Amino acid sequence: MIGGGTDAFIGAIHRAAAFMDNRIELVCGCFSIKPEISISSGKQYFVPDDRIYTSYQEMFEKESKLPKDKRMDFVTIVTPNFAHFEPAMMALDLGFNVVIEKPMTFNLDQAKKLRDKVNETGLTLALTHTYSGYPAVKQAKQMIEEGKLGNIRKVFVEYTQGWLSDRVELQGENNATWRTDPKRSGKGGCVGDIGTHAWHLSEYITGQKVTKVCGELNAFVPGRPIDDDAAAFFEYDGGAKGVLMACQVAIGEENALKIRVYGDKGGIEWNQQEPNTLLFKTSTRPTEIYRVGNGFMNDASKFNTRTPGGHPEGYIEAFANIYKNFSLTLDAKLNGETPSKAMLDFPNVNDGVRGMQFVETMVASGYDENKKWFDWVE
Amino acid sequence: MIGGGTDAFIGAIHRAAAFMDNRIELVCGCFSIKPEISISSGKQYFVPDDRIYTSYQEMFEKESKLPKDKRMDFVTIVTPNFAHFEPAMMALDLGFNVVIEKPMTFNLDQAKKLRDKVNETGLTLALTHTYSGYPAVKQAKQMIEEGKLGNIRKVFVEYTQGWLSDRVELQGENNATWRTDPKRSGKGGCVGDIGTHAWHLSEYITGQKVTKVCGELNAFVPGRPIDDDAAAFFEYDGGAKGVLMACQVAIGEENALKIRVYGDKGGIEWNQQEPNTLLFKTSTRPTEIYRVGNGFMNDASKFNTRTPGGHPEGYIEAFANIYKNFSLTLDAKLNGETPSKAMLDFPNVNDGVRGMQFVETMVASGYDENKKWFDWVE
Amino acid sequence: MIGGGTDAFIGAIHRAAAFMDNRIELVCGCFSIKPEISISSGKQYFVPDDRIYTSYQEMFEKESKLPKDKRMDFVTIVTPNFAHFEPAMMALDLGFNVVIEKPMTFNLDQAKKLRDKVNETGLTLALTHTYSGYPAVKQAKQMIEEGKLGNIRKVFVEYTQGWLSDRVELQGENNATWRTDPKRSGKGGCVGDIGTHAWHLSEYITGQKVTKVCGELNAFVPGRPIDDDAAAFFEYDGGAKGVLMACQVAIGEENALKIRVYGDKGGIEWNQQEPNTLLFKTSTRPTEIYRVGNGFMNDASKFNTRTPGGHPEGYIEAFANIYKNFSLTLDAKLNGETPSKAMLDFPNVNDGVRGMQFVETMVASGYDENKKWFDWVE
Amino acid sequence: MIGGGTDAFIGAIHRAAAFMDNRIELVCGCFSIKPEISISSGKQYFVPDDRIYTSYQEMFEKESKLPKDKRMDFVTIVTPNFAHFEPAMMALDLGFNVVIEKPMTFNLDQAKKLRDKVNETGLTLALTHTYSGYPAVKQAKQMIEEGKLGNIRKVFVEYTQGWLSDRVELQGENNATWRTDPKRSGKGGCVGDIGTHAWHLSEYITGQKVTKVCGELNAFVPGRPIDDDAAAFFEYDGGAKGVLMACQVAIGEENALKIRVYGDKGGIEWNQQEPNTLLFKTSTRPTEIYRVGNGFMNDASKFNTRTPGGHPEGYIEAFANIYKNFSLTLDAKLNGETPSKAMLDFPNVNDGVRGMQFVETMVASGYDENKKWFDWVE
Repeated sequence: MIGGGTDAFIGAIHRAAAFMDNRIELVCGCFSIKPEISISSGKQYFVPDDRIYTSYQEMFEKESKLPKDKRMDFVTIVTPNFAHFEPAMMALDLGFNVVIEKPMTFNLDQAKKLRDKVNETGLTLALTHTYSGYPAVKQAKQMIEEGKLGNIRKVFVEYTQGWLSDRVELQGENNATWRTDPKRSGKGGCVGDIGTHAWHLSEYITGQKVTKVCGELNAFVPGRPIDDDAAAFFEYDGGAKGVLMACQVAIGEENALKIRVYGDKGGIEWNQQEPNTLLFKTSTRPTEIYRVGNGFMNDASKFNTRTPGGHPEGYIEAFANIYKNFSLTLDAKLNGETPSKAMLDFPNVNDGVRGMQFVETMVASGYDENKKWFDWVE
Repeated sequence: MIGGGTDAFIGAIHRAAAFMDNRIELVCGCFSIKPEISISSGKQYFVPDDRIYTSYQEMFEKESKLPKDKRMDFVTIVTPNFAHFEPAMMALDLGFNVVIEKPMTFNLDQAKKLRDKVNETGLTLALTHTYSGYPAVKQAKQMIEEGKLGNIRKVFVEYTQGWLSDRVELQGENNATWRTDPKRSGKGGCVGDIGTHAWHLSEYITGQKVTKVCGELNAFVPGRPIDDDAAAFFEYDGGAKGVLMACQVAIGEENALKIRVYGDKGGIEWNQQEPNTLLFKTSTRPTEIYRVGNGFMNDASKFNTRTPGGHPEGYIEAFANIYKNFSLTLDAKLNGETPSKAMLDFPNVNDGVRGMQFVETMVASGYDENKKWFDWVE
Repeated sequence: MIGGGTDAFIGAIHRAAAFMDNRIELVCGCFSIKPEISISSGKQYFVPDDRIYTSYQEMFEKESKLPKDKRMDFVTIVTPNFAHFEPAMMALDLGFNVVIEKPMTFNLDQAKKLRDKVNETGLTLALTHTYSGYPAVKQAKQMIEEGKLGNIRKVFVEYTQGWLSDRVELQGENNATWRTDPKRSGKGGCVGDIGTHAWHLSEYITGQKVTKVCGELNAFVPGRPIDDDAAAFFEYDGGAKGVLMACQVAIGEENALKIRVYGDKGGIEWNQQEPNTLLFKTSTRPTEIYRVGNGFMNDASKFNTRTPGGHPEGYIEAFANIYKNFSLTLDAKLNGETPSKAMLDFPNVNDGVRGMQFVETMVASGYDENKKWFDWVE
Repeated sequence: MIGGGTDAFIGAIHRAAAFMDNRIELVCGCFSIKPEISISSGKQYFVPDDRIYTSYQEMFEKESKLPKDKRMDFVTIVTPNFAHFEPAMMALDLGFNVVIEKPMTFNLDQAKKLRDKVNETGLTLALTHTYSGYPAVKQAKQMIEEGKLGNIRKVFVEYTQGWLSDRVELQGENNATWRTDPKRSGKGGCVGDIGTHAWHLSEYITGQKVTKVCGELNAFVPGRPIDDDAAAFFEYDGGAKGVLMACQVAIGEENALKIRVYGDKGGIEWNQQEPNTLLFKTSTRPTEIYRVGNGFMNDASKFNTRTPGGHPEGYIEAFANIYKNFSLTLDAKLNGETPSKAMLDFPNVNDGVRGMQFVETMVASGYDENKKWFDWVE
């Protein structure tokens, strides 16, 4: 693991998610750019002293010299956006598979290089678009693949939070500081941080790709040098239209990611804050409440479920599904087998490239007051 | 009453709403362009035989010749959009106050003429933007006036229905036929029918006026000659930004009007399908559930509430609030008094003009693929 | 109307409910035992001066001398419990039909006399167990009649309020004063006021009658001379078992009436505070959300619905269904026709007698610390 | 671990819960009474071959001979009820701490012996009443301790499931078979399986102990030799009264555990199926929505929370809190420190004894048709 010291939020989630299924062990790491924090964190995580490193370069070098059955199988990168690319490239070069936080890189150019490297090495890269890991989301995706919604017409996807309603980045709020600093976050603020999740979810569930964007970006909080609000109209390649809303100044909202998809036969609605429920709507029958863990759920949902109905699964379990499927894929490849579609069901380097394209397209469109529609940046 | 025969939906709602508070009596009417339906409807509504008319012209002429204490005090017009203007003008010319369905007229020009006539005669015109009649909506409006939300930043307003998911207008669905026919509905389909409600609600609650629009219109159902879906970005004169979604092909949705408003101090959320609940959100305290009918509700809400908390009020009660306030205003004027702010709290001819401007602006923007932002049509 | 002056809550509801369908007019009344309030109330309700009375005896005498087509058709009695019986008997004796608030009388003996009088005169008495008037409740009842739930096993019915959490009856809260005074309310406090509604709803929906009761009564607020909380186990004649909870010290609750019924094939859940939704549950399929006003609702529901789906109906509309069906029944009888099952679908004098039996049985059981099960009092 | 082979549900949950915080490793186990399943399960769980055992006796003997820093620190027992006592006693005798599923033993006598053994050895026993591990439940408990609800008056606790609506125990449903067999489950069916959770939650949150019970037990499914439904009235030692409902034939319900507690100052409501929300109600202010992970939550809640607001935690996280606090307690004791109140916040052997007393009291009362109130069995 690179990053994820005891002072960081997302690293702890990665570890809980990775450990949950008893398939993954934390064997080494460089947990902070501050050596003392890396060491104290590693000790607290029960990592052997000689495998707690103080730079990722050192880690990769030493680990790559260990015998195959001793060295780490993959590395998780949970640093701020600007520090994703170099360690990921180095990992791939030295033969390590990679799990990486989104957005995948600092800019689109890096993303494409990473994609080329993955293709060249044949290694596996997982991107933690967590929300696609929920079983109810898998249910929705499979229902659409099976035609239960008919031709998709309209997508509403929204992701609202309130934690940036004040300028908390000036008050020492760690998670806010780098996210609102274009030098560390990249061109996109809100659009990169949560807009990417919302956009990705819409492509993941519908199986359609956005081709055109009419976007709007706002920075509502005085003095903030990057967007804290974004909206867009979408056109998808399968004929659907969409509206995206992403807002980090929706005061009082926690983490309100919600998607609705309407076809000519049926519609679905899913809300991340009650993630075990999926509504299915038609024109002639009562709306149905699909609940995770029940016998009537489909295969994709069941493959990613740990508990029976009514025993709620949450964010960490969704996260764990990415790790579980990633590790099943690694195992299959290690055994010379072809991973199944179910094993490969995690966001990968291609999602990462498209994510950076999404940010680029939104930034181009959002800051242009004249031109209405922008083609997807390639 | 003009229109509202036994074969129409909205007329029955008008009557129930008008009667509820025992302030209004149905004394005469021309309930259909088909004489036999007008007559049979009038009988069924207990209207005296000699005051059931078979044309509105006849009605206005005869009623205007009755002594003041006998003749009707106002007329309600519930015909399709194209048949609003003429009877309304005639009513005003002959000294009758008017209640009229939205959108107020067939086009903007008519709307302005009606406004001029109202100003000229000093009579009162109420427009049934029903949703502004809900007590929880009044609560929200007053909270914003009092500064409880601070400066408003972002508005999300959405109105989704599914009943036009198929081409029901070809299957004899009465309410659909004229709404999807530009000759009877006007330029706007979905945008006029429900988009106007959503837009109006956003201006009513925030007290801000839209100044710029970036709009999108779609006709998803093959062969339909008018929009059945609309979306827009808004700029408001008070600095807020907004996103509007209106969709009549959101299959399985009933009448899902919902608004969220976020300021720099607080936010509110209201959902028409559970209309007695208003959520109030801040950054530091638990979200509060304001429920209609409780002692802690504000004056504007209480003035428009009939039952104690937990005895749900609904659509007809919201409608009745427009009639009640309209009739209180008429009474005050009859008595030579100045109606209070609370009495005047119903949509009027100015809302009607702005509603037609909204449709014009949306149509201009929605069908333009190049220009991003449109100024509000004046 | 007897009672229901401008200082009373429930009278206003009765009037709104009665007027809504334009089938009923308020022609006369004695609105208070205080003459000046009766007169001022009557004027405010647009009742002609000569038909505003200052005693109900005077009203009945004078009205009964009017010609048939002029005099009132029925009387609504909305006085406190102790003042139900005498005016109701007098009304029936003089040939007037009756609408009466629940509980029907002050004690069981009066209830039986009233039943005998109704049977003897052939007149019609409606009892306002409002909650049975909701269209979603009708839906549930018909589904059970049709066997959609199979054999009923278990009923949970609960009705919680918080308004008596403090001793508001000492603080001049009008509605509380007589309800907590055994001399005006009768033997039962909470059990009579809201327990009866909950019990009635369970019998109405299931079509089964309670035969045995194990009850508990509590007076939680110090000094209160009557129960403010009640609970019971039930056995029903069709084999079901039940649990009833009624509580008026459930602080912060408004009017939380809720029922769940489980059979061997399916179950339903309904909540009065979101009255347009009925959940239908089975063991093998997703739970279905039946929503009032949609095409898939059953006949009993549709017969009692005024608005399309998503236009919420509320408490007054449920109330109005009792008045509407009562008035359809009166009309049919006036025309010498037999009222249909749908017309007769309102609580009647037999429900009133059973309601008083319920109170008697609960009081007997609730204050007995030793004996577990009590047979239904006859 | 004893039990929890690959064919069992609850063992997998225990493992995920234990691993989540990277504080606990699975080092050995006897996972089934069938040797081949124990071995294949152990391999799948990455347990070293020489520490996969085929009897628990063998496991305890061999593990106890390992050096202190090698042998297991505690054992988790997840066998059916009848096979809890012997391994737990043997574990304690040999110096191992214990985590055990509820109900703690097959009968009350065993429970008391286990309590004596725990007291004698000074070892630690945790009982997995999972639901007390939720952060929102901790919030409620602390609020009541702090007096935010005032004197507690009424508790409603309910736990409904539908999975035993048919006689699935005859259709090879593993989890049902032993639970409905008195020889393996003990005297209580539903009352032991889920009634104990509901009762425990009520004592945990309120801090009051039940002293008197009026209970009812039913076996609704024909042929079932044990209760599948239970209800009770409670009296608590702090003056509160309660109603408990536990039902496993509530068809269509998943795992609907819900508790409401009303005091003279405030009330709370919590629903296990949306576990991150706690409602707080008062008589004069809007109901407040306490949501887990926010800054305004109290210490007890925060100590047991892993994610920020809106990143839902679920059942496994609640389970993990028991393991986490248990392991913190073991660590403190190992280091010669006194565990803090927060560390000791997990159900222990005393809860286990009271749980068995609850079953005994309910069975005595539930099958007695004459006597109303039963004192708590000691």
